[in-house]
Amino acid sequence: SLALSSEKRASDFNSFVARTNTCGELRSAHVGQEVTLCGWIQYQRQGLFLVLRDFQGLTQIIIPQDEAHSHVKKVLYDAPLESVVRVTGTVISRPPGQKNPRMPTGDIEVNVKTAEVLNSCKKLPFEIKDFIKKSEALRMQYRYLDLRSFQMQHNLRLRSQMVMKMREYLCNLHGFVDVETPTLFKRTPGGAKEFVVPSREPGRFYCLPQSPQQFKQLLMVGGLDRYFQVARCYRDEGSKPDRQPEFTQIDIEMSFVDQAGIRRLIEGLLQYSWPNESSPITTPFPSMSYAEALAEYGTDKPDTRFGMKITDVSDVFRRTEIGFVQNAVNKPQGSVKAICIPQGVRHLQNKDFESLKESAKSQFNQEVLHLILKPDESLKSPFSKFLSEEQQSELIQALKVQADDVVLLAAGEHEKVCLVLGNMRLECANFLESRGLVLRDPTAFHFLWVVDFPLFLPKEENPAKLESAHHPFTAPHPSDTGLLYSEPAKVRSQHYDLVLNGSEIGGGSIRIHNAEQQRFVLETVLKEDPELLSHLLEALKCGAPPHGGIALGLDRLICLVAGAPSIRDVIAFPKSFKGHDLMSNAPDYITTEELEPYHIQVAWPAAEAEANKN
Amino acid sequence: SLALSSEKRASDFNSFVARTNTCGELRSAHVGQEVTLCGWIQYQRQGLFLVLRDFQGLTQIIIPQDEAHSHVKKVLYDAPLESVVRVTGTVISRPPGQKNPRMPTGDIEVNVKTAEVLNSCKKLPFEIKDFIKKSEALRMQYRYLDLRSFQMQHNLRLRSQMVMKMREYLCNLHGFVDVETPTLFKRTPGGAKEFVVPSREPGRFYCLPQSPQQFKQLLMVGGLDRYFQVARCYRDEGSKPDRQPEFTQIDIEMSFVDQAGIRRLIEGLLQYSWPNESSPITTPFPSMSYAEALAEYGTDKPDTRFGMKITDVSDVFRRTEIGFVQNAVNKPQGSVKAICIPQGVRHLQNKDFESLKESAKSQFNQEVLHLILKPDESLKSPFSKFLSEEQQSELIQALKVQADDVVLLAAGEHEKVCLVLGNMRLECANFLESRGLVLRDPTAFHFLWVVDFPLFLPKEENPAKLESAHHPFTAPHPSDTGLLYSEPAKVRSQHYDLVLNGSEIGGGSIRIHNAEQQRFVLETVLKEDPELLSHLLEALKCGAPPHGGIALGLDRLICLVAGAPSIRDVIAFPKSFKGHDLMSNAPDYITTEELEPYHIQVAWPAAEAEANKN
Repeated sequence: SLALSSEKRASDFNSFVARTNTCGELRSAHVGQEVTLCGWIQYQRQGLFLVLRDFQGLTQIIIPQDEAHSHVKKVLYDAPLESVVRVTGTVISRPPGQKNPRMPTGDIEVNVKTAEVLNSCKKLPFEIKDFIKKSEALRMQYRYLDLRSFQMQHNLRLRSQMVMKMREYLCNLHGFVDVETPTLFKRTPGGAKEFVVPSREPGRFYCLPQSPQQFKQLLMVGGLDRYFQVARCYRDEGSKPDRQPEFTQIDIEMSFVDQAGIRRLIEGLLQYSWPNESSPITTPFPSMSYAEALAEYGTDKPDTRFGMKITDVSDVFRRTEIGFVQNAVNKPQGSVKAICIPQGVRHLQNKDFESLKESAKSQFNQEVLHLILKPDESLKSPFSKFLSEEQQSELIQALKVQADDVVLLAAGEHEKVCLVLGNMRLECANFLESRGLVLRDPTAFHFLWVVDFPLFLPKEENPAKLESAHHPFTAPHPSDTGLLYSEPAKVRSQHYDLVLNGSEIGGGSIRIHNAEQQRFVLETVLKEDPELLSHLLEALKCGAPPHGGIALGLDRLICLVAGAPSIRDVIAFPKSFKGHDLMSNAPDYITTEELEPYHIQVAWPAAEAEANKN
Repeated sequence: SLALSSEKRASDFNSFVARTNTCGELRSAHVGQEVTLCGWIQYQRQGLFLVLRDFQGLTQIIIPQDEAHSHVKKVLYDAPLESVVRVTGTVISRPPGQKNPRMPTGDIEVNVKTAEVLNSCKKLPFEIKDFIKKSEALRMQYRYLDLRSFQMQHNLRLRSQMVMKMREYLCNLHGFVDVETPTLFKRTPGGAKEFVVPSREPGRFYCLPQSPQQFKQLLMVGGLDRYFQVARCYRDEGSKPDRQPEFTQIDIEMSFVDQAGIRRLIEGLLQYSWPNESSPITTPFPSMSYAEALAEYGTDKPDTRFGMKITDVSDVFRRTEIGFVQNAVNKPQGSVKAICIPQGVRHLQNKDFESLKESAKSQFNQEVLHLILKPDESLKSPFSKFLSEEQQSELIQALKVQADDVVLLAAGEHEKVCLVLGNMRLECANFLESRGLVLRDPTAFHFLWVVDFPLFLPKEENPAKLESAHHPFTAPHPSDTGLLYSEPAKVRSQHYDLVLNGSEIGGGSIRIHNAEQQRFVLETVLKEDPELLSHLLEALKCGAPPHGGIALGLDRLICLVAGAPSIRDVIAFPKSFKGHDLMSNAPDYITTEELEPYHIQVAWPAAEAEANKN
């Protein structure tokens, strides 16, 4: 059913309107009642009956055949499919043998007495029931038709109800205050992904913030104690698949809290709001350090629904004389690692291995070798002859290889090898699932906290300089505070990520509440101009409580819960991957006059300027 | 108390954090318990005790004087006011005679054993308790300090709780779906007040919409049936007092509904969400046609908390020979109207009348006369000698004038005279209240529906042309549909406004659901290019249900419920009337390089360009 069961009983869908019932609710118990239904004509057969649809379901309508009701018959016979009609009639039992057990209203039908076409539908370019099969661009252009599908109705209602439960948990059960923060704000230092909004003052721009980060910290300084907001956020990343220029996060901040407190809060929040229809989730969620996640899964967002974890086999190879391995293990951070694909021989073909190696080469410039344990328990590999029997046996033991398993092996710098094998692990899972195996149960929900991230990372363009791994307000790990002033690159942070089935669905941290420490991080470690954040630094001096928080990516979370293929399926009016609204054609050209009040003009790229001139 | 009583029992404010209690909750029943409190030092006296504050209240802390706790004493003695501390100690009864009945925690105090300064506060520019008296600009600059005030805490919590109740009513009780709609959208026709957002495609702009109007109608076409959203909206009006460039509305749309249905929905919504602490409200709300509101109150948003209604006295004057009156009543729509100020002679002075007349002259270019009924029941007026005794008596009867009442009278075109006297009515109320009378009970809540507005109005710049009185999607009144094609200027609409104590807090309408009618309105009546709304016109052809909705201005509503002087007092981080964020200094200048990805450049006004050059 479309409505979550717990809500369904309480909600009155027929209040304030003329209908007596929805098209999904009539049952045998209603037989004999006179009802008024409003809905869309889904199907009509030879003027004998039609099927009326609304958001809650379908009801079969019997078209009267007697002369006295010839007008009703004509009205319903003539109305095109998808026309909107109101009918009034009596609920009757379907004749024996004609009940439809697959239809919730399949025991009854409605004998119509009066009917009115409220709006006639022109011929649609396609039938609604086929709509889901059409191209996504077409679905986007006619989004209002796409929304009539069972799946979109389900997804949007699921989202609404899950968010409502979250609000009940935060606001009613735990005293959080829902505070709206501005979206027209000041540019943040390094805010390259912020949309700009010109004001009427020449040269002055607002920015659309990527999150309410500064505001929520200021609310803590303001003594709000517990804040949450279902916050609209903006990120201009140009074209990216499965990203939206505007998105929504469940944004939370608390005073006087530590990491454990935030974790318990979120575990409780998700458990409370979890749909009854989904597999239940258990708390507390397991946790794992970033170092562990990298070493075992080659990613900071491990999908723990399946194994094939990365194993370090450096010790096995350290005493061999295989050139490329020696090269790798003798470097700092050098290592040899592998993953084992159970029964890989049976499911994967040579071209799959070629494809995997090709992918490692093109994405990471990394060689990957594959080894097979033959049914006679002997290893087939490009370097078997360089391994003693003892070493082969050690390798088999370390990786727990069994007959017909395949091992993918890579040698090189620790982090890189982990990333490559983490990638191989997911690609193998795709291959295996395309062959019919189920590695990642789509109905299972594996939550995982990833913690102890580094506070800073070397800058990509200049590794001698540091940048924040997450953002500059993240507090250092209490055990590492001393290192902040001596070896900042070694400091772990109090950042935590929440991962669900291999997707990051949230992240947060305990924040810096000491003004001096915040200034040191900005000025000395990150070499940023602290003046841009002077209001925040000033606020930290005025009695800022210790505080921390988290933000959950709502679109991604609902997408995973609904089992939807894309976040676009849980957003009513999503943008295309180029950031376009295909229905209204936004963004669109506007006139020079319309830009005048904002004191801006378009700087046409040379080619277009030239074309416009001619 | 800060928390609404019904919520207070259910909410656990101490979950997930180290404190055992808030600073507002300890009572005699807690005596003997060991507690941990976190809060701000509000007050400290001679190292003997201090008062600790958090969002929920104040608790008195006894500083230990014995040698064993000298460290605790020093910590608390040295900490500046507004420092954040955590204390642990035992709840004890205050000694007899020292209980403070004005303080909710006044029966107890806490004997402290351990204390820790979590963050020390530098000297503030002013004490928090004096903050509310400071200039608004200073309060805005240090908004995070202003938020610590009782009033701001109260207002933001009231807002959060009232919105939560609204959500329960809509979502849980009546099956509404909370749908988020985009804020990066296409410019609407005539959308002069829409902020523009440049995209990375040269010349193409998103706009920040003034409301989700198009989206909510498209959701109805999509069969969502009942939609609501607490929607962020944007309106660029430049500098305007008590307006914000971004604001929030409770946005609602329903299918298969009529005006009466929407009214009942909203009456139920407000009754359900109304704070227990406020005077209760009764439903249904009275309603009044726009014509009536104009004639009796001279405004479309009457404050019905007090009388002094406008009375038409044209009939009394029609047979007199007073020149200016004759001029007025002989014109089309000409009339003579008056308001009566009870006991005006006692409360208003000559300079007040001068000021009122001056205001009518400067704002409306309209003469206003004032008449007095003397204790001997004779009229004192500039034109008494032109009125027969019978006419004088008719006037007194029509206006129900009593001795010492003052009558303000104006003659001219109906609408203008109504507007002038409506204005006079409010200015008189201000005068009378400044003299200590209570006309508008601030604790009373008078709701009023105003209905039957005209669908179109003559354009100000060209009265021969029509524009929408509200917006082009408003449906004509069913009785006037025929007139749409013959005399559109005479058509009343299905628009309705909700007025509270003289402020418009909401408005909505039944929408046009017929594509042909919508196209006729856009193209033929309004002379607008229907292509800009082709997606909506197309949608109306695809089986759009009849639908209607409403939007409530949340900021204004909460402001009235909280009795706050300005909407800025119910918004956490408001902009100044110039649209500035005084805390962060937004909007701000950004570099040419930062504008490059958006293909725009600043068009400096000539003077500034010149100044920049030199």
